Amino acid sequence: MAELREGESLVDLQRNGLVIIQDRSRFCFGIDAVLLSGFAEVRKGETVLDLGTGTGILPLLLSAKTEAGKLIGLEIQPESAEMAGRSVALNGLSDRIEIVNGDLKEAVTLFGRGTVDVVVSNPPYMTGGHGLLNPSDAKAIARHEIACTFSDVARAAAAVLRPGGRFYLVHRPFRLPELMTTLSGAGLEPKQMRLVYPTAEKEPELVLLGCVKGGKPRMKVEKPLILKNESGDYTKEVRENYGF
Amino acid sequence: MAELREGESLVDLQRNGLVIIQDRSRFCFGIDAVLLSGFAEVRKGETVLDLGTGTGILPLLLSAKTEAGKLIGLEIQPESAEMAGRSVALNGLSDRIEIVNGDLKEAVTLFGRGTVDVVVSNPPYMTGGHGLLNPSDAKAIARHEIACTFSDVARAAAAVLRPGGRFYLVHRPFRLPELMTTLSGAGLEPKQMRLVYPTAEKEPELVLLGCVKGGKPRMKVEKPLILKNESGDYTKEVRENYGF
Repeated sequence: MAELREGESLVDLQRNGLVIIQDRSRFCFGIDAVLLSGFAEVRKGETVLDLGTGTGILPLLLSAKTEAGKLIGLEIQPESAEMAGRSVALNGLSDRIEIVNGDLKEAVTLFGRGTVDVVVSNPPYMTGGHGLLNPSDAKAIARHEIACTFSDVARAAAAVLRPGGRFYLVHRPFRLPELMTTLSGAGLEPKQMRLVYPTAEKEPELVLLGCVKGGKPRMKVEKPLILKNESGDYTKEVRENYGF
Repeated sequence: MAELREGESLVDLQRNGLVIIQDRSRFCFGIDAVLLSGFAEVRKGETVLDLGTGTGILPLLLSAKTEAGKLIGLEIQPESAEMAGRSVALNGLSDRIEIVNGDLKEAVTLFGRGTVDVVVSNPPYMTGGHGLLNPSDAKAIARHEIACTFSDVARAAAAVLRPGGRFYLVHRPFRLPELMTTLSGAGLEPKQMRLVYPTAEKEPELVLLGCVKGGKPRMKVEKPLILKNESGDYTKEVRENYGF
């Protein structure tokens, strides 16, 4: 069973009694994954695949927020995958969530072509691993495109999704032109975009994108998602719809 | 000299004493052109080309707002071009602004390759002319991609711009994926984006984009441009930086 190891701690997700194991020396989930779990639309019984699940935050949150059937988290780093698997067991969700240790570039071999209804991903944001002190470091692999590029992620999503299936992701706005070009090129038409602003007076730090495999071009840009108000508190919308 | 004809009226641009001739039966300039004139950065002495100038609003406003050298407005509809030319004369700006009646698909032939520092454009927003009662109507040509597609506009801009030259445009957010793919494909890297929201609570209706010919991928997404406050008045920023 899932006992905590040295350096690990248990974080209360404040939703359905869920908890998740985190390790400060490794990559810890952030607001981006939480926002994505509120942005992704998953219908009853649908199969969801998370590309690069890390410690399993997205399958865990989506199991509570949606009526998804099966949720699969794919993670290339064995230690992260193992930790995610223990979190799933700890929550008694092993019948609904499966954590797979593997490379997303092999997603079709692992899961088959056109088998998934929804793909979600919170991929590495930074291009390349140039200038990194330790590119094999767990945090570096989660943050930089060392083990995969965005093009790999888009190709994997396109290959496993059924026609009409959806791909929801979170990324940095500065890469938007490349994201859109790559997604369209992979047959994943961007249909929905929401920019996330720290406050109403600042530039956006995150972008949430929803794509449809084989969708027709026409994107809905939603109203701004403002994280915090003037007092520095999370706004009502974030607390109610995008929180844990 | 510029006398008003039947159906025409003179609009005071409330800036440097500028006026512009408009005709309600034809396409009249809107807030989009005004916002673009505040978004485009033009340095002293630079040559600016407006692709699809309509009644000449962009060259007129840019002549007042910037220290541009020569400003050229290219317009395919002879009646609009003629009206724009009369507005230029009426403002005594014929030495600085040239209105050319011609097709933007012929821009290289008309102006030469790599000769322009800045291109601006407020192109037709709607794809095709399907279902239009009268596709040869002046308003239809200004609003729908009848005489040119967005791809034509991007190609024309890329061809006439010098390396490092800038392309500023305004368009509808629902076409963003296609705009970015087309611009990148034409060698005009999107470097700057600002979404324009009617109010803070609504979806954006316009997007301002700034591209650099041969630029490296990395886009700055600016803070939201909110047009009106709760009382329905234009916000301070619009009045001060984006107004006439």
